[in-house]
Amino acid sequence: MPRIVQCVPNFSEGRDLDAVETIVKPLKNREGFKLVSYEPDKDYNRTVVTLLGDPEAMIEPLLEFMKIARDTIDMNHQQGEHPRMGSIDVVPFIPIDGITMEECVDIAHRLAKDVAERLDIPVYTYAEAAVQKGRKKLPTIRKGEYEGMIEKIRDPKWHPDYGKPSTHPTAGVTAIGARMPLIAYNIDLATDDIDVAKKIARAIRGSSGGFKHIQAGPVFLEERKHVQVTMNILNYKQNPIYRVFETVRTEAKRYHIDVPSAEIVGLVPKDTLVRSLKYYFDAAGKSLDEGLGFDELASLAKAHLKFRDFDANKIIEANVT
Amino acid sequence: MPRIVQCVPNFSEGRDLDAVETIVKPLKNREGFKLVSYEPDKDYNRTVVTLLGDPEAMIEPLLEFMKIARDTIDMNHQQGEHPRMGSIDVVPFIPIDGITMEECVDIAHRLAKDVAERLDIPVYTYAEAAVQKGRKKLPTIRKGEYEGMIEKIRDPKWHPDYGKPSTHPTAGVTAIGARMPLIAYNIDLATDDIDVAKKIARAIRGSSGGFKHIQAGPVFLEERKHVQVTMNILNYKQNPIYRVFETVRTEAKRYHIDVPSAEIVGLVPKDTLVRSLKYYFDAAGKSLDEGLGFDELASLAKAHLKFRDFDANKIIEANVT
Repeated sequence: MPRIVQCVPNFSEGRDLDAVETIVKPLKNREGFKLVSYEPDKDYNRTVVTLLGDPEAMIEPLLEFMKIARDTIDMNHQQGEHPRMGSIDVVPFIPIDGITMEECVDIAHRLAKDVAERLDIPVYTYAEAAVQKGRKKLPTIRKGEYEGMIEKIRDPKWHPDYGKPSTHPTAGVTAIGARMPLIAYNIDLATDDIDVAKKIARAIRGSSGGFKHIQAGPVFLEERKHVQVTMNILNYKQNPIYRVFETVRTEAKRYHIDVPSAEIVGLVPKDTLVRSLKYYFDAAGKSLDEGLGFDELASLAKAHLKFRDFDANKIIEANVT
Repeated sequence: MPRIVQCVPNFSEGRDLDAVETIVKPLKNREGFKLVSYEPDKDYNRTVVTLLGDPEAMIEPLLEFMKIARDTIDMNHQQGEHPRMGSIDVVPFIPIDGITMEECVDIAHRLAKDVAERLDIPVYTYAEAAVQKGRKKLPTIRKGEYEGMIEKIRDPKWHPDYGKPSTHPTAGVTAIGARMPLIAYNIDLATDDIDVAKKIARAIRGSSGGFKHIQAGPVFLEERKHVQVTMNILNYKQNPIYRVFETVRTEAKRYHIDVPSAEIVGLVPKDTLVRSLKYYFDAAGKSLDEGLGFDELASLAKAHLKFRDFDANKIIEANVT
């Protein structure tokens, strides 16, 4: 069985599209993995790349890509709305299929070592790959950003996990990690009352007592003229979509507000859908055919989880052939 | 408006009932508060006392009670199933009505200071009254128990918050704190399959990703011949009963199992019931009369939250007249 990871490098250039093309070039048309997308953002001045496939095959191309990013982006002159600490800001590995989190942690450490030795960029390992407890969360590592890291990295408490305790003069530092897939999930509420979205977000998110792995907040959608509870599910195994959706429906009842639809931003692992669809099939006394194709899974998700703007292309595995 | 706290001192004698009577005597028939109950447990060799009323009025009687406990119980010869670190093991103050958590924290610190100075027992302040982050949780403080505290307290990291850094020669140490009311709440499942209770407990409890303030586990009730999800709700404002109950019902659907009833062990604040009943009234488009009596609240709780063996006496405030 092939081992499949999702790797989502973020680099700090999103305005100069020629530079973006130059940087991502080594990731195109390679054996063993697929460049699913790269999305430059002008406001953020940042590009998010999505790779899918065999992590072994990714290592050398990632090093080539990171070398070009290092030599192309001068962090001393980079500005944008997204916080950042290096030319290649962050490289997470996410287990998708046939691979454990532990193996992703190993891959992250191998890449981290190579980046420090061959590209001379100091590396912090984070999330599941963190070797120090205080380095699990990216915002904690990144605090101070590029400019602040120059001092921060000299403090023995912030010596990098790989490389020398001084930032690269133009590329800063990089964080390389392993984490669960993060599901960007939004639930639509049939009201323009932001207070309702606020109260429901508070009921479900971990920081105010709700589900541990849910980060949620309220948002008003200008174009659609209704509010949403917008969230990240950081661990879909412990906090499956259906449970969050049903809890939001339960809460919405007290406000007499409909929950007509929901949406997934970006991609989801097939397993996320299967786990949640199984709930509805179990409840109906039916069994879910594990051999269903991506199109059928997508239409079941639309029916049971009320996903709008959803099709098979939103399923990670459908992008790997 | 009278300020009402619940104070629940636990002392380390539950076998010698004459000694128990001697120890609790100063708490009987006092002005300003009521001794609601004291429950000696033979296996635990421990007695749990419940006081309700004005905290100001409790301070001196508590000091008399603790002095007798100190002089009656010799921890060098005390054994029981419940972990313990002193003759008076723990004294929590719980805000019930007309009083803030901050005021309960102040009361806890005043008592702690008096206990250290007048009874010569070192005190750790815990939960909301903790002055050190690592001393919030009682099990962390109590680790090592009476015997281990003799060494532990000498370590500068474990010097007490009040009193000298050495245990009392017969009474050990005491923890005094302030915390939210803890709701001991069990949900019945119409099955004898412990696995279902296990899975549902896992879905709702904070430690496995569920609601932050829920501690839950499965249990099989020998006499009733069915399983329960048994839990403590550590913060009923953030994790209201109705939300936990509805989530358990949602989960039970996939196993085609009925959720016929639930129970409250000990007492609950009136506010717990009001908050949850409001949900069902809101959902039904009705408004809950805030002036309802205890009997009416109890019967609404039985109807909507399916409480069995429940009446007005289980409501804390009904015990204060």
